[in-house]
Amino acid sequence: MRPLSLNTVTVKERWGLSECIEGCARHGIPGISPWRDVLAAMGVDAAAKKIRDAGLTVSGLCRGGMFPAADAAGRAAAIEDNRRAIAEAHTIGAACLVMVCGGLPPGSRDLPGARQMVADGLAAILPDARAAGVTIALEPLHPMTCADRSVLSTFAQALDLCDALGAGTGVAVDAYHVWWDPNLARDMARAGSRIAGLHICDWLVPTTDLVFDRGMPGDGVIDLAGFIALAESAGYGGLVEVELLSRRWWAEDPDHVLRLMKERHAAIG
Amino acid sequence: MRPLSLNTVTVKERWGLSECIEGCARHGIPGISPWRDVLAAMGVDAAAKKIRDAGLTVSGLCRGGMFPAADAAGRAAAIEDNRRAIAEAHTIGAACLVMVCGGLPPGSRDLPGARQMVADGLAAILPDARAAGVTIALEPLHPMTCADRSVLSTFAQALDLCDALGAGTGVAVDAYHVWWDPNLARDMARAGSRIAGLHICDWLVPTTDLVFDRGMPGDGVIDLAGFIALAESAGYGGLVEVELLSRRWWAEDPDHVLRLMKERHAAIG
Repeated sequence: MRPLSLNTVTVKERWGLSECIEGCARHGIPGISPWRDVLAAMGVDAAAKKIRDAGLTVSGLCRGGMFPAADAAGRAAAIEDNRRAIAEAHTIGAACLVMVCGGLPPGSRDLPGARQMVADGLAAILPDARAAGVTIALEPLHPMTCADRSVLSTFAQALDLCDALGAGTGVAVDAYHVWWDPNLARDMARAGSRIAGLHICDWLVPTTDLVFDRGMPGDGVIDLAGFIALAESAGYGGLVEVELLSRRWWAEDPDHVLRLMKERHAAIG
Repeated sequence: MRPLSLNTVTVKERWGLSECIEGCARHGIPGISPWRDVLAAMGVDAAAKKIRDAGLTVSGLCRGGMFPAADAAGRAAAIEDNRRAIAEAHTIGAACLVMVCGGLPPGSRDLPGARQMVADGLAAILPDARAAGVTIALEPLHPMTCADRSVLSTFAQALDLCDALGAGTGVAVDAYHVWWDPNLARDMARAGSRIAGLHICDWLVPTTDLVFDRGMPGDGVIDLAGFIALAESAGYGGLVEVELLSRRWWAEDPDHVLRLMKERHAAIG
């Protein structure tokens, strides 16, 4: 069984980063993956020390990306912000910086153009990432987020970008975003050592919201055991991160959510 | 400009098939694509005559498919129902029978298994389709429908199935379902003469429902002009069908909807 990690967004309505670190320690969850908002709220140095003192592995920092913008100034600002994110990831010892690449610029219908902006933005920050020893983890997002969150829509597209960008890049593979892909097994094998992060949650039937209705592992239709097995066969040896954006679970007691995460993770095996 | 076709689901809350036929004639829309429920309500023979008398082209019959089922009896029933759909498509002179292939059987997490059920179901009905001269148009559906509507999730997957099944098959390409695909241009060219139907509507930002929030062409972010141009470059010479599942537009006066469809279609060019 791969060790578990808590993505802080899973309990974001009730816990800040400090409580997440304490919660992981209390529940015996060995990994954590903060979002930048809670990291900033706590202070990067204080967070780094507390995470280190708790003995937690940082499976990732969420998130960089959001490269497309309507003008050059907007794109330059995104690149600068990503450089700060790289520094933060380095400070907290994150295994990777997860990239949610961004959607179409407002008013645009130029999808190939937005994809080029993503490639250009990644190329611009890559020297900084390499210098800092931070892996840039491209996260393909579900095609239903293509317009407003990520024009990086498939696993294969992420791997093609890794091929083009070279050393220092990898893929953050989230079951929720790629479970439907007919080429999942092929692409997991192709990814191999480039699997920089592995995220799980579940697809609910019905799903009532395009962003905030992800399911607790085991409550939906994704073959999560098979998903993790594919990653392991490809050589993945890192943590399994639970990242749950869900109005339902945000309303629950976070200690209950962490207990359930552990149970479900153990049941998946 | 490719000729326009009205998919009857676009006005399903207010018009039956008879009113749709009259509406197309009144608005100078040369094509129609009925769903089976309104076809059955009118009677297949009566509908065929009225469509013929109105001089309308039938760009498709919606829909066959829904092959996966929890047991063999369920799968056999689906195949029988598809055989009836083929006969109906033949009677009304439809250019194709559009296949919404079906999701996971209830309680199942076996996605490859469901995909095999789809392939098996299609193979079972194909002799009937060939005998009737009805093209089976595989419609890749947006990955967000994978669990409950269609495990046929990408254009390439549909083309692979066409390759495997052979003569009598094609693809119904709906902009809403494939616009995000990084391989859209490649797959449209690969499809070539196998493009059996071309559907348009638009992706709204934000999209508030996974099924019933499609946008009127022009109201969203899809490059529909580019989409149609890709199909034409691939050799497509058929109609452009507007298929809009939308609570918003269902509430409107259908004559207004048809006028707007025509305007928007003309604006796309």
